[in-house]
Amino acid sequence: MIHARTTAALLLTAAGLLSQTALAADPAVPYPADYRSWSHVKSMVIEEGHPLFASFGGIHHLYANKKAMKGYAAGKFPDGSVIAFDLLEATRADGTVTEGARKVLGVMHKDSKRYAATGGWGFEGFGGGAADKRVVGDNAATACYACHTAQAASDYVFSKTRD
Amino acid sequence: MIHARTTAALLLTAAGLLSQTALAADPAVPYPADYRSWSHVKSMVIEEGHPLFASFGGIHHLYANKKAMKGYAAGKFPDGSVIAFDLLEATRADGTVTEGARKVLGVMHKDSKRYAATGGWGFEGFGGGAADKRVVGDNAATACYACHTAQAASDYVFSKTRD
Repeated sequence: MIHARTTAALLLTAAGLLSQTALAADPAVPYPADYRSWSHVKSMVIEEGHPLFASFGGIHHLYANKKAMKGYAAGKFPDGSVIAFDLLEATRADGTVTEGARKVLGVMHKDSKRYAATGGWGFEGFGGGAADKRVVGDNAATACYACHTAQAASDYVFSKTRD
Repeated sequence: MIHARTTAALLLTAAGLLSQTALAADPAVPYPADYRSWSHVKSMVIEEGHPLFASFGGIHHLYANKKAMKGYAAGKFPDGSVIAFDLLEATRADGTVTEGARKVLGVMHKDSKRYAATGGWGFEGFGGGAADKRVVGDNAATACYACHTAQAASDYVFSKTRD
């Protein structure tokens, strides 16, 4: 009887942990650990005076995993597509603009069911590129998707590939 | 007799073509057809006023194949390492610097025997990124290696990887 009760209690605890994990992890965008080895799509510098300087000032590079590279070509991104927006400080001096510290790593992760509310894309920002510093969290709809809706025709993606 | 002469003439012609091909192709640096899918190492903008503007003005990206990525980590690059220096026009307007047309694709290709005279590296530049527009050719020693010798301690490579 004691054994049966203990087992039941353990099972309930396990079930509780599982459901908590599911609730907490479900909407979270995975940190893309290997994005620096993905294809480099394009780059751009945003300087002082630009309306997006406060959020995106610096030099940014866009990287895409293999599924996302197919998505750029197709105009529609398959589930599992991930695009990384890697924003670094840009220092202008002596006729050069050089890269500095990472400001934020932005991520778009396609999962048409999981992120149905935001165009099938999960959006996250990792402060300083740190996997545990989520700066978007539950605000993806207003902080990211609101602007990306303008790009509905290209599956909510602003960037285009180039040669 | 006529037949034999024709055959001999054809063989001589074929041998001549082969030796010409061998002579022309031997020191040539292969065009790195897939470099845009390699790892992106770093980027930099060089603007007017910089002493290297005439040669390298614009935004450049460095890409490395897998062997070269190991070379950066080891401080010595194995044969087969290839580093691409991809130089694009950079347009400064409205608080942004954006990428334009490709100016030149520079390549360093490690083969310690083939390119022994220039630090084990073959150097080439492809004008506009076109595989058939070789702008360095036989001038690698003066046009490229002369400056790269300053980096002998890092196996003649200027760039460093970053996070």
